[in-house]
Amino acid sequence: MPPLTPPKSGDALFASVDRVNAELFTLTYGAIVRQLLTDLEEVEEVNKQLDQMGYNIGTRLVDEFLAKSNVSNCVDFKETADTIAKLGFKMFLGVTATVTNWDAEGTTCSFVLEDNPLVDFVELPDTCQGLQYCNVLSGVIRGALEMVSMKTEVTWVRDMLRGDDAYEMRVKLTKQVPEEYPYKDDD
Amino acid sequence: MPPLTPPKSGDALFASVDRVNAELFTLTYGAIVRQLLTDLEEVEEVNKQLDQMGYNIGTRLVDEFLAKSNVSNCVDFKETADTIAKLGFKMFLGVTATVTNWDAEGTTCSFVLEDNPLVDFVELPDTCQGLQYCNVLSGVIRGALEMVSMKTEVTWVRDMLRGDDAYEMRVKLTKQVPEEYPYKDDD
Repeated sequence: MPPLTPPKSGDALFASVDRVNAELFTLTYGAIVRQLLTDLEEVEEVNKQLDQMGYNIGTRLVDEFLAKSNVSNCVDFKETADTIAKLGFKMFLGVTATVTNWDAEGTTCSFVLEDNPLVDFVELPDTCQGLQYCNVLSGVIRGALEMVSMKTEVTWVRDMLRGDDAYEMRVKLTKQVPEEYPYKDDD
Repeated sequence: MPPLTPPKSGDALFASVDRVNAELFTLTYGAIVRQLLTDLEEVEEVNKQLDQMGYNIGTRLVDEFLAKSNVSNCVDFKETADTIAKLGFKMFLGVTATVTNWDAEGTTCSFVLEDNPLVDFVELPDTCQGLQYCNVLSGVIRGALEMVSMKTEVTWVRDMLRGDDAYEMRVKLTKQVPEEYPYKDDD
Protein backbone atom coordinates (compact mmCIF):
# COMPACT_ATOMS: atom_id res chain seq x y z
CA MET A 1 0.00 0.00 0.00
CA PRO A 2 1.45 3.37 -0.89
CA PRO A 3 1.85 5.81 1.98
CA LEU A 4 -1.13 8.04 2.59
CA THR A 5 0.97 11.18 2.87
CA PRO A 6 3.94 12.09 0.69
CA PRO A 7 7.33 12.51 2.37
CA LYS A 8 7.94 15.98 3.75
CA SER A 9 10.51 18.29 2.22
CA GLY A 10 13.77 18.70 4.12
CA ASP A 11 12.87 22.25 5.07
CA ALA A 12 9.41 21.30 6.32
CA LEU A 13 10.92 18.42 8.25
CA PHE A 14 13.56 20.58 9.89
CA ALA A 15 10.92 23.16 10.77
CA SER A 16 8.75 20.47 12.39
CA VAL A 17 11.23 19.30 15.00
CA ASP A 18 12.38 20.79 18.29
CA ARG A 19 15.73 22.46 17.94
CA VAL A 20 18.57 23.84 20.01
CA ASN A 21 21.30 26.33 19.22
CA ALA A 22 23.91 24.89 16.85
CA GLU A 23 26.78 26.53 18.72
CA LEU A 24 25.73 24.82 21.94
CA PHE A 25 25.70 21.51 20.08
CA THR A 26 29.10 22.18 18.50
CA LEU A 27 30.69 23.10 21.81
CA THR A 28 29.10 20.12 23.54
CA TYR A 29 30.43 17.78 20.90
CA GLY A 30 33.85 19.44 21.18
CA ALA A 31 33.73 18.81 24.92
CA ILE A 32 33.18 15.09 24.29
CA VAL A 33 36.12 14.87 21.93
CA ARG A 34 38.37 16.69 24.36
CA GLN A 35 37.23 14.45 27.21
CA LEU A 36 37.91 11.31 25.18
CA LEU A 37 41.37 12.57 24.19
CA THR A 38 42.16 13.15 27.87
CA ASP A 39 40.78 9.81 29.04
CA LEU A 40 41.90 7.51 26.26
CA GLU A 41 45.16 9.11 25.13
CA GLU A 42 45.36 7.07 21.91
CA VAL A 43 43.84 8.96 18.99
CA GLU A 44 42.87 5.68 17.34
CA GLU A 45 40.84 4.71 20.42
CA VAL A 46 39.10 8.09 20.37
CA ASN A 47 38.17 7.52 16.72
CA LYS A 48 36.62 4.17 17.63
CA GLN A 49 34.68 5.60 20.56
CA LEU A 50 33.28 8.47 18.51
CA ASP A 51 32.18 6.01 15.85
CA GLN A 52 30.55 3.76 18.43
CA MET A 53 28.85 6.75 20.07
CA GLY A 54 27.52 7.80 16.67
CA TYR A 55 26.33 4.26 15.96
CA ASN A 56 24.33 4.23 19.19
CA ILE A 57 22.84 7.61 18.39
CA GLY A 58 22.00 6.55 14.82
CA THR A 59 20.07 3.51 15.97
CA ARG A 60 17.86 5.87 17.97
CA LEU A 61 17.54 8.74 15.49
CA VAL A 62 16.23 6.51 12.73
CA ASP A 63 12.99 6.09 14.64
CA GLU A 64 12.40 9.83 14.85
CA PHE A 65 13.28 10.15 11.21
CA LEU A 66 10.82 7.49 10.05
CA ALA A 67 8.11 8.76 12.38
CA LYS A 68 8.33 12.38 11.24
CA SER A 69 9.43 12.25 7.61
CA ASN A 70 6.59 10.13 6.18
CA VAL A 71 9.29 8.21 4.33
CA SER A 72 8.28 4.58 3.95
CA ASN A 73 10.38 1.90 2.24
CA CYS A 74 13.10 3.10 -0.08
CA VAL A 75 13.27 0.84 -3.13
CA ASP A 76 17.04 0.47 -3.14
CA PHE A 77 20.31 1.75 -1.73
CA LYS A 78 20.36 4.66 -4.18
CA GLU A 79 17.03 5.97 -3.03
CA THR A 80 18.08 5.42 0.58
CA ALA A 81 21.25 7.45 0.06
CA ASP A 82 19.32 10.30 -1.55
CA THR A 83 16.83 10.29 1.30
CA ILE A 84 19.57 10.51 3.90
CA ALA A 85 21.34 13.29 2.04
CA LYS A 86 18.30 15.46 1.39
CA LEU A 87 16.09 14.70 4.39
CA GLY A 88 18.19 13.01 7.07
CA PHE A 89 21.00 15.55 7.22
CA LYS A 90 18.53 18.39 6.98
CA MET A 91 16.29 17.08 9.74
CA PHE A 92 19.09 16.66 12.24
CA LEU A 93 21.83 19.12 11.34
CA GLY A 94 19.95 21.67 9.24
CA VAL A 95 22.23 21.13 6.23
CA THR A 96 21.99 18.93 3.16
CA ALA A 97 24.60 16.63 1.66
CA THR A 98 25.34 15.81 -1.97
CA VAL A 99 25.39 12.15 -3.03
CA THR A 100 28.11 11.50 -5.58
CA ASN A 101 30.89 9.19 -6.79
CA TRP A 102 28.73 6.08 -7.21
CA ASP A 103 30.60 2.92 -8.14
CA ALA A 104 29.45 0.80 -11.10
CA GLU A 105 27.57 -1.69 -8.88
CA GLY A 106 25.56 1.03 -7.15
CA THR A 107 26.70 -0.19 -3.73
CA THR A 108 29.20 2.53 -2.80
CA CYS A 109 28.72 6.27 -2.85
CA SER A 110 29.91 9.43 -1.14
CA PHE A 111 28.11 12.03 0.94
CA VAL A 112 29.75 15.40 0.47
CA LEU A 113 29.14 18.13 3.04
CA GLU A 114 30.23 21.67 2.44
CA ASP A 115 28.65 22.99 5.59
CA ASN A 116 29.23 20.97 8.75
CA PRO A 117 27.93 22.36 12.05
CA LEU A 118 30.06 19.89 13.98
CA VAL A 119 33.31 21.67 13.20
CA ASP A 120 32.59 25.36 13.67
CA PHE A 121 35.48 26.96 15.59
CA VAL A 122 37.45 23.69 15.55
CA GLU A 123 41.15 23.53 14.80
CA LEU A 124 43.11 20.34 15.29
CA PRO A 125 46.37 20.76 17.17
CA ASP A 126 49.42 19.06 15.64
CA THR A 127 49.23 16.28 18.20
CA CYS A 128 45.79 15.24 16.94
CA GLN A 129 46.46 14.86 13.25
CA GLY A 130 45.16 11.29 13.19
CA LEU A 131 41.89 12.30 14.82
CA GLN A 132 38.74 11.60 12.82
CA TYR A 133 36.87 14.45 14.43
CA CYS A 134 33.57 13.80 12.66
CA ASN A 135 33.48 10.06 13.28
CA VAL A 136 30.27 10.50 15.20
CA LEU A 137 28.54 11.36 11.90
CA SER A 138 29.79 8.31 10.05
CA GLY A 139 28.75 6.25 13.06
CA VAL A 140 25.26 7.74 12.98
CA ILE A 141 24.88 6.80 9.29
CA ARG A 142 26.12 3.25 9.96
CA GLY A 143 23.81 2.82 12.96
CA ALA A 144 20.77 4.25 11.26
CA LEU A 145 21.25 2.12 8.11
CA GLU A 146 21.69 -1.01 10.16
CA MET A 147 18.25 -0.42 11.68
CA VAL A 148 16.78 -0.53 8.18
CA SER A 149 18.62 -3.75 7.38
CA MET A 150 21.61 -2.31 5.52
CA LYS A 151 25.06 -3.17 6.84
CA THR A 152 27.60 -0.60 5.74
CA GLU A 153 31.18 0.49 6.15
CA VAL A 154 31.57 4.24 6.40
CA THR A 155 34.91 6.03 6.15
CA TRP A 156 36.06 9.63 5.72
CA VAL A 157 37.96 10.34 2.53
CA ARG A 158 38.05 14.15 2.69
CA ASP A 159 38.12 16.30 5.81
CA MET A 160 38.40 20.09 5.86
CA LEU A 161 40.06 19.91 9.28
CA ARG A 162 42.94 18.19 7.48
CA GLY A 163 43.03 20.75 4.72
CA ASP A 164 40.70 19.13 2.16
CA ASP A 165 38.16 21.25 0.31
CA ALA A 166 35.05 19.47 1.67
CA TYR A 167 33.87 16.70 3.97
CA GLU A 168 33.39 13.45 2.09
CA MET A 169 32.19 10.27 3.68
CA ARG A 170 32.34 7.03 1.67
CA VAL A 171 29.48 4.64 2.35
CA LYS A 172 29.81 1.03 1.18
CA LEU A 173 26.84 -1.32 1.39
CA THR A 174 28.26 -4.65 2.49
CA LYS A 175 25.10 -6.64 3.18
CA GLN A 176 21.42 -6.04 2.77
CA VAL A 177 19.30 -8.19 5.04
CA PRO A 178 15.82 -8.75 3.64
CA GLU A 179 13.28 -7.27 6.01
CA GLU A 180 11.41 -9.87 8.00
CA TYR A 181 7.71 -9.44 8.37
CA PRO A 182 5.94 -10.95 11.33
CA TYR A 183 3.62 -12.89 9.03
CA LYS A 184 4.56 -14.38 5.71
CA ASP A 185 2.18 -14.20 2.76
CA ASP A 186 1.73 -17.96 2.69
CA ASP A 187 0.99 -18.33 6.42
CA MET B 1 26.08 55.80 25.84
CA PRO B 2 22.92 53.73 25.69
CA PRO B 3 22.87 50.89 23.16
CA LEU B 4 21.60 51.92 19.74
CA THR B 5 19.38 48.89 19.36
CA PRO B 6 17.12 47.45 22.04
CA PRO B 7 17.71 43.85 23.16
CA LYS B 8 15.96 41.28 21.00
CA SER B 9 13.10 39.23 22.36
CA GLY B 10 13.87 35.62 23.26
CA ASP B 11 11.85 34.36 20.31
CA ALA B 12 13.57 36.67 17.84
CA LEU B 13 16.92 35.72 19.27
CA PHE B 14 16.25 32.00 19.00
CA ALA B 15 15.02 32.46 15.44
CA SER B 16 18.21 34.35 14.53
CA VAL B 17 20.69 31.60 15.38
CA ASP B 18 21.68 28.40 13.58
CA ARG B 19 20.01 25.42 15.10
CA VAL B 20 20.21 21.63 15.12
CA ASN B 21 17.69 18.96 16.04
CA ALA B 22 17.08 18.83 19.80
CA GLU B 23 16.92 15.03 19.84
CA LEU B 24 20.39 14.84 18.30
CA PHE B 25 21.64 17.18 21.01
CA THR B 26 19.93 15.19 23.74
CA LEU B 27 21.34 11.89 22.52
CA THR B 28 24.79 13.39 22.08
CA TYR B 29 24.73 14.72 25.62
CA GLY B 30 23.50 11.33 26.83
CA ALA B 31 26.45 9.72 25.08
CA ILE B 32 28.85 11.99 26.98
CA VAL B 33 27.30 11.12 30.32
CA ARG B 34 27.43 7.42 29.54
CA GLN B 35 31.04 7.69 28.43
CA LEU B 36 32.03 9.51 31.61
CA LEU B 37 30.24 6.93 33.76
CA THR B 38 32.19 4.17 32.00
CA ASP B 39 35.53 5.95 32.18
CA LEU B 40 35.38 7.49 35.63
CA GLU B 41 33.25 4.99 37.56
CA GLU B 42 32.66 7.34 40.50
CA VAL B 43 29.40 9.26 40.10
CA GLU B 44 30.84 12.16 42.06
CA GLU B 45 33.69 12.47 39.56
CA VAL B 46 31.21 12.44 36.68
CA ASN B 47 29.30 15.27 38.34
CA LYS B 48 32.49 17.32 38.57
CA GLN B 49 33.45 16.65 34.96
CA LEU B 50 30.01 17.62 33.66
CA ASP B 51 30.16 20.83 35.64
CA GLN B 52 33.64 21.63 34.33
CA MET B 53 32.57 20.84 30.77
CA GLY B 54 29.62 23.18 31.18
CA TYR B 55 31.86 25.86 32.64
CA ASN B 56 34.12 25.71 29.57
CA ILE B 57 31.11 25.87 27.26
CA GLY B 58 29.61 28.78 29.20
CA THR B 59 32.76 30.87 28.90
CA ARG B 60 32.42 30.54 25.11
CA LEU B 61 28.65 30.90 24.76
CA VAL B 62 28.57 34.22 26.55
CA ASP B 63 30.31 35.83 23.58
CA GLU B 64 27.69 34.63 21.14
CA PHE B 65 25.00 35.74 23.53
CA LEU B 66 26.35 39.28 23.91
CA ALA B 67 27.06 39.58 20.20
CA LYS B 68 23.59 38.53 19.08
CA SER B 69 21.25 39.66 21.84
CA ASN B 70 22.04 43.40 21.83
CA VAL B 71 22.13 43.13 25.62
CA SER B 72 24.66 45.53 27.06
CA ASN B 73 25.45 45.94 30.74
CA CYS B 74 22.88 44.64 33.20
CA VAL B 75 22.55 47.02 36.13
CA ASP B 76 22.63 44.36 38.81
CA PHE B 77 22.44 40.65 39.55
CA LYS B 78 18.63 40.72 39.40
CA GLU B 79 18.58 42.08 35.88
CA THR B 80 21.31 39.64 34.92
CA ALA B 81 19.28 36.71 36.24
CA ASP B 82 16.18 37.83 34.36
CA THR B 83 18.18 38.22 31.17
CA ILE B 84 19.59 34.71 31.45
CA ALA B 85 16.18 33.23 32.19
CA LYS B 86 14.28 34.97 29.41
CA LEU B 87 16.94 35.37 26.72
CA GLY B 88 19.85 33.08 27.52
CA PHE B 89 17.90 29.87 27.98
CA LYS B 90 15.74 30.70 24.98
CA MET B 91 18.65 31.46 22.70
CA PHE B 92 20.47 28.22 23.42
CA LEU B 93 17.88 25.65 24.44
CA GLY B 94 14.69 27.10 23.01
CA VAL B 95 12.98 27.19 26.43
CA THR B 96 12.63 29.86 29.09
CA ALA B 97 13.24 29.62 32.80
CA THR B 98 11.46 31.31 35.69
CA VAL B 99 13.49 33.30 38.20
CA THR B 100 12.18 32.88 41.72
CA ASN B 101 12.98 32.36 45.41
CA TRP B 102 15.13 35.46 45.84
CA ASP B 103 16.80 35.81 49.20
CA ALA B 104 16.53 39.07 51.16
CA GLU B 105 19.95 40.33 50.02
CA GLY B 106 19.14 39.85 46.35
CA THR B 107 22.23 37.69 45.86
CA THR B 108 20.68 34.24 45.59
CA CYS B 109 17.86 33.11 43.35
CA SER B 110 16.55 30.04 41.58
CA PHE B 111 16.06 29.25 37.92
CA VAL B 112 13.12 26.90 37.49
CA LEU B 113 12.78 24.92 34.27
CA GLU B 114 9.68 22.98 33.47
CA ASP B 115 10.83 21.95 30.04
CA ASN B 116 14.39 20.70 29.76
CA PRO B 117 15.59 19.38 26.39
CA LEU B 118 18.60 17.78 28.04
CA VAL B 119 16.58 15.04 29.66
CA ASP B 120 14.15 13.83 27.01
CA PHE B 121 14.09 10.00 27.06
CA VAL B 122 16.40 9.88 30.08
CA GLU B 123 15.84 7.56 33.01
CA LEU B 124 18.44 7.13 35.69
CA PRO B 125 19.21 3.53 36.61
CA ASP B 126 19.30 2.75 40.33
CA THR B 127 23.10 2.66 40.25
CA CYS B 128 23.22 6.33 39.24
CA GLN B 129 21.04 7.91 41.87
CA GLY B 130 23.75 10.37 42.90
CA LEU B 131 24.25 11.54 39.33
CA GLN B 132 23.61 15.24 38.70
CA TYR B 133 22.64 14.64 35.11
CA CYS B 134 22.14 18.31 34.24
CA ASN B 135 25.37 19.56 35.79
CA VAL B 136 26.46 20.80 32.40
CA LEU B 137 23.74 23.46 32.60
CA SER B 138 24.74 24.73 36.01
CA GLY B 139 28.33 24.76 34.77
CA VAL B 140 27.33 26.83 31.75
CA ILE B 141 25.67 29.43 33.97
CA ARG B 142 28.68 29.58 36.27
CA GLY B 143 31.10 29.90 33.34
CA ALA B 144 29.06 32.51 31.51
CA LEU B 145 28.57 34.65 34.64
CA GLU B 146 32.25 34.52 35.45
CA MET B 147 32.98 36.06 32.07
CA VAL B 148 30.84 39.05 33.03
CA SER B 149 32.66 39.39 36.37
CA MET B 150 30.19 37.54 38.58
CA LYS B 151 31.52 34.62 40.60
CA THR B 152 28.72 32.24 41.53
CA GLU B 153 27.99 28.90 43.11
CA VAL B 154 25.30 26.96 41.29
CA THR B 155 23.62 23.86 42.68
CA TRP B 156 20.59 21.76 41.80
CA VAL B 157 17.84 21.73 44.42
CA ARG B 158 15.09 20.04 42.41
CA ASP B 159 15.51 17.47 39.65
CA MET B 160 12.69 15.69 37.84
CA LEU B 161 14.98 12.73 37.16
CA ARG B 162 14.95 12.24 40.93
CA GLY B 163 11.20 12.55 41.18
CA ASP B 164 10.86 16.29 41.84
CA ASP B 165 8.20 18.32 40.06
CA ALA B 166 10.58 20.65 38.21
CA TYR B 167 14.24 21.46 37.64
CA GLU B 168 15.47 24.10 40.04
CA MET B 169 18.97 25.48 40.02
CA ARG B 170 20.08 27.73 42.88
CA VAL B 171 22.47 30.49 41.89
CA LYS B 172 24.39 32.30 44.60
CA LEU B 173 26.45 35.37 43.76
CA THR B 174 29.61 35.09 45.86
CA LYS B 175 31.71 37.88 44.42
CA GLN B 176 31.20 40.63 41.93
CA VAL B 177 34.43 41.88 40.40
CA PRO B 178 34.12 45.44 39.15
CA GLU B 179 34.70 45.49 35.41
CA GLU B 180 38.07 46.88 34.47
CA TYR B 181 38.20 49.28 31.60
CA PRO B 182 41.37 49.70 29.60
CA TYR B 183 41.38 53.43 30.33
CA LYS B 184 40.30 55.02 33.55
CA ASP B 185 38.34 58.27 33.55
CA ASP B 186 41.13 60.12 35.24
CA ASP B 187 43.87 58.89 32.89
